[in-house]
Amino acid sequence: MANLSISRPLPLRNVLITDDFWSAYIRLVRNVVVPYQWEALNDQIEGAEPSHAMRNFKISAGLEQGEFYGMVFQDSDVAKWLEAVSYLLETGYDAELEQLADEVIAIIAKAQHADGYLNTYFTLKEPNGRWTNLAECHELYCAGHLIEAAVAYYRATGKRLILDVACKLADCIDQVFGPGDTQIHGYDGHQEIELALVKLYQTTTNERYLRLSQYFLDERGKEPRFFEEEFHRRNGQTHFPSLDMVFDYTYNQSHLPVRQQHTAEGHAVRVVYMCSGMADVAAESGDLELLEACRKLWTNIVSKRMYITGAIGSMAHGEAFTLDYDLPNDTAYAETCASIGLIFFAQRMLQIEAKSEYADMMERALYNTVLSGMSQDGKRFFYVNPLEVWPDAIRKNHQLNHVKPVRQGWFGCACCPPNIARLLASLGQYIYTCQGDIVYANLYIGSEMTLDVTGQSIIIHQHSELPWKGNVRFTIEVSAKTSFTLALRIPNWCTEPSLTVQGSPVQLAENVRDGYVYLTREWNDKDEVEWVLPMEVRRMKGHPHVRDTFGKVALQCGPLIYCMEEADNGAGLHQIVLEDEDEHQKHFEQALLGGIQTLSVAAKRIRSEDLGHKWGEQLYSANIPHEWEPMTAQFIPYYAWANRGQGEMSVWIKEK
Amino acid sequence: MANLSISRPLPLRNVLITDDFWSAYIRLVRNVVVPYQWEALNDQIEGAEPSHAMRNFKISAGLEQGEFYGMVFQDSDVAKWLEAVSYLLETGYDAELEQLADEVIAIIAKAQHADGYLNTYFTLKEPNGRWTNLAECHELYCAGHLIEAAVAYYRATGKRLILDVACKLADCIDQVFGPGDTQIHGYDGHQEIELALVKLYQTTTNERYLRLSQYFLDERGKEPRFFEEEFHRRNGQTHFPSLDMVFDYTYNQSHLPVRQQHTAEGHAVRVVYMCSGMADVAAESGDLELLEACRKLWTNIVSKRMYITGAIGSMAHGEAFTLDYDLPNDTAYAETCASIGLIFFAQRMLQIEAKSEYADMMERALYNTVLSGMSQDGKRFFYVNPLEVWPDAIRKNHQLNHVKPVRQGWFGCACCPPNIARLLASLGQYIYTCQGDIVYANLYIGSEMTLDVTGQSIIIHQHSELPWKGNVRFTIEVSAKTSFTLALRIPNWCTEPSLTVQGSPVQLAENVRDGYVYLTREWNDKDEVEWVLPMEVRRMKGHPHVRDTFGKVALQCGPLIYCMEEADNGAGLHQIVLEDEDEHQKHFEQALLGGIQTLSVAAKRIRSEDLGHKWGEQLYSANIPHEWEPMTAQFIPYYAWANRGQGEMSVWIKEK
Repeated sequence: MANLSISRPLPLRNVLITDDFWSAYIRLVRNVVVPYQWEALNDQIEGAEPSHAMRNFKISAGLEQGEFYGMVFQDSDVAKWLEAVSYLLETGYDAELEQLADEVIAIIAKAQHADGYLNTYFTLKEPNGRWTNLAECHELYCAGHLIEAAVAYYRATGKRLILDVACKLADCIDQVFGPGDTQIHGYDGHQEIELALVKLYQTTTNERYLRLSQYFLDERGKEPRFFEEEFHRRNGQTHFPSLDMVFDYTYNQSHLPVRQQHTAEGHAVRVVYMCSGMADVAAESGDLELLEACRKLWTNIVSKRMYITGAIGSMAHGEAFTLDYDLPNDTAYAETCASIGLIFFAQRMLQIEAKSEYADMMERALYNTVLSGMSQDGKRFFYVNPLEVWPDAIRKNHQLNHVKPVRQGWFGCACCPPNIARLLASLGQYIYTCQGDIVYANLYIGSEMTLDVTGQSIIIHQHSELPWKGNVRFTIEVSAKTSFTLALRIPNWCTEPSLTVQGSPVQLAENVRDGYVYLTREWNDKDEVEWVLPMEVRRMKGHPHVRDTFGKVALQCGPLIYCMEEADNGAGLHQIVLEDEDEHQKHFEQALLGGIQTLSVAAKRIRSEDLGHKWGEQLYSANIPHEWEPMTAQFIPYYAWANRGQGEMSVWIKEK
Repeated sequence: MANLSISRPLPLRNVLITDDFWSAYIRLVRNVVVPYQWEALNDQIEGAEPSHAMRNFKISAGLEQGEFYGMVFQDSDVAKWLEAVSYLLETGYDAELEQLADEVIAIIAKAQHADGYLNTYFTLKEPNGRWTNLAECHELYCAGHLIEAAVAYYRATGKRLILDVACKLADCIDQVFGPGDTQIHGYDGHQEIELALVKLYQTTTNERYLRLSQYFLDERGKEPRFFEEEFHRRNGQTHFPSLDMVFDYTYNQSHLPVRQQHTAEGHAVRVVYMCSGMADVAAESGDLELLEACRKLWTNIVSKRMYITGAIGSMAHGEAFTLDYDLPNDTAYAETCASIGLIFFAQRMLQIEAKSEYADMMERALYNTVLSGMSQDGKRFFYVNPLEVWPDAIRKNHQLNHVKPVRQGWFGCACCPPNIARLLASLGQYIYTCQGDIVYANLYIGSEMTLDVTGQSIIIHQHSELPWKGNVRFTIEVSAKTSFTLALRIPNWCTEPSLTVQGSPVQLAENVRDGYVYLTREWNDKDEVEWVLPMEVRRMKGHPHVRDTFGKVALQCGPLIYCMEEADNGAGLHQIVLEDEDEHQKHFEQALLGGIQTLSVAAKRIRSEDLGHKWGEQLYSANIPHEWEPMTAQFIPYYAWANRGQGEMSVWIKEK
């Protein structure tokens, strides 16, 4: 095993976000999303599908009477809520919220069995069915989310109760699973426990948890196939008959041992959660073979199976990857959770190797798909994030059944909303990583970060005008001269960045490695570093092998991908063709959609007024030339789409 | 009720097909398809899904022991085979085949119950379930196919046994269904009985059958909904749980009374079978309201919901229409049977009103989708006829699950192969129609047609070079001078037709009505009429509202739609862009795919050799210009695709 140099994020409490753009979202999470989700978990939202998640815990704890209701993985919604709450508490004291969390934790603790087992579905519905259907029933997945929440709450508050619950649960799992003769040689249908156990190891330093994580990773894909064996042991009983979770090996990545997987196959969220766990174990154990598998999967995803918005999952069936370069815009699955998982994976790879491509991808997924997943008011969510929408077809063509033309209040399978909440609430962890005396600035988000470098406390103030302008200023606060290296990511969307330190230009070429510029010096108090990252509107093309982008372009400005909406351009977006010239007008519209920059581009469209006259009842003709009229095509950032009612939307637009 | 002037097809025996193109297909039906299907019906084809259809009849007849196996509508495969056999017998004596048919008929007759009931599924599987699940169980549909076969066999041979069986069955149905208090006020989930009863009426002149047909048509869509009522009567028992045949009203066109339906909704085959029955009843009864509904549905289909190949049905779910202008090329359903049904509908409308648009559409569906449905050797079939295929995606993207990249041997639901057989075997019925002393030539297919006009026997020899050349010659054979009108359809694909009678040019303009040129004269023996219908390669565009054809063209030459295949053009057909110029080289290649005309067109494509070098692992880029290389794009007729193994195929190609 190699000894890897890992750069680590700082404790969340050390990073105070003060960003014009992101602070508003984090406030929204605190003031709207988390309270709204609490109501949802307690079935207090009129018209929304009931969640029953808190009731399940109360009933399991013996505090209420009733029956289990909801998905088999309903517990995880409470865990993700608690995890988000923990991040909010770590970044801003809130006695009332902490009290509420303590109450929830007390209920969860009461629902735990004496042997550490904790899962309300099996406790209430199938008390004798524990660990009999790992393929479908998400027991270890739910455990993983509980562990993540426990670690987060402990880190935020120092209170041990939920951490003890998590350890007891992990110990229970460690007894049940493993290579021993009396143990189950298995793994979960939905990866999550793997990365959670590494967090628990990092927090407790108990190496059993790291070993157990690696065990789960390495069992997956072995033959004979565990899911088939347990399927026969339970006489073929099936929980999700419409899905083939047992025999469709790729669905849960059990088609091959993880170290031999070179392409991302099956359920997209499972893939990226698995990859996150693999990267975690590789980082902690120095397992280079596992790291190499991570690199291959990463490359396959980002170079062949990812939408320009950082979304992944090309089909609804199995919420899954399909094949290289198959990226349909309208029938995309592009689940919000999958992009969140991709960020988890990217962040872990970035910790292992400081290459800007990982941070670029985090930024891409964050500014586009993750934000698209939530409405401007924080109350409605997209599970699926298509790149092209024709609402009439969604209503009538079953192929688009999974797509919604507007965000929805709450889902029966409510994975995405709490996942957005926990990501945004912990956003501070993604901005910087540190390794020895190197501080990596990965994301340009206004913030105040405190850390110790070689015994010296420093504060880095970041002021950022992203995503609207590429001006970023770092001010160093030190009590005495301090030597350290500030490594700044050069965003992949910027072709002519310029950097000054204390007003003096820095020659980038000689200081750049893997997309980061390294500034090593003795820093004085109030030293300033300024990035000027010109944001030109870029006409992005897809790789020519991508059928659904060929002949089209997508506009990108800074990290933001843009789209056209019917609200601005009328119906029939497919009839619009951008002119060849490269002039793009930018306007910042304060009153629009929370304040956004829009783009105007010269285009032409089919003259619609005489279409009826010219075509009559002909559907096909050789004789009717298209008549065009000039227009100005209006673009808004993709993340802001579908906040003005139903209408067509398109990211990829034809180009002359 | 109005008195409509109906033009009728001639008895099939009066039309002998002698066409270079079509005779080969009809021989194929006689020598390969029908024998092959007989083997299939008797489970003698290795590797194909068993049909069991003949066994079901034998068991029902008490001739063998066993259980029912197959789809609930398995009987109809035998009926469609028998119908095809009848047409073959009518056009060519075959003692052995007639003997075989007589044996089958004897078995069918034995399987009939004393009260006339005849259905092997219910006889063997649910003897007490008769008429309890019209929504799903196809009882009247199977009866309809049996009636069609019976009428065809009686017309071919004059033998009454199967006609008597059919009448007894129809009488049984007439007793069970109707407005009476003790009768069922219902209709079938799959239309077919309606058009079959009109055929039985036409053959027997028993008006009860016509009235029953109209009854079934007018019950559909009434409230309260019959399918829901019977569903509750049978306590919610469901035959096809994956389909929602009861509550999805549009699936079986029960969402509205048929006279109020203006758009084609739901299962495409059902729609066009229903429309055929509606047109039949309108023609026989002079019901103008019903005729008007036919016209509206016709217009909606052909002007907004039909592929350029004459295929219909835009989605796999429910094998159904979706919405106006929604015509995806790759996920199309485009079932062979649906195009056959569209031909039935067109033929009936043509009989009511002699407008060339109906015959144009018959020709379009016939030369493209129907022929595409069968392999060159007559042994493999397409159920689904997509206009764009990427075989790798079919294997991996579940959205394309219904699409096959190559024709299949036999289907569990084997509706299409026998449907092709019966259509081709009866093709002679589609060429001419007559009304009084007007003979309409609707299709240009080499043939010898005999008829009596005002007591005088005439023969019309047609010699046609379609689909490769637009030269058609009619030679009139009369024993004495005879006055009649020959009305010739002007094909919609021909812009500059020229016509001569006895070598003298005919001024078309003054003799044209609704797309037919009327030649009224006293004809002498050996009089010749010559059509020169120049076939230019036409670059067809879709209506600008069709998203999936916008910016693309399809090549049409004569009635044939062309496509590109990977076999001729390499992979990555989406990277090919046709040059603007209008030069298209035609080559007739005798050795290729049974002898076809190919087209060569100047085009450009992405230079593939340095793609890897230029793009590396980038999936999106603003900086890599496309590099093009000139090429000659090769097209083959669409009907001939997928006869050279798996590969990409595309009808619609980008244009500069």
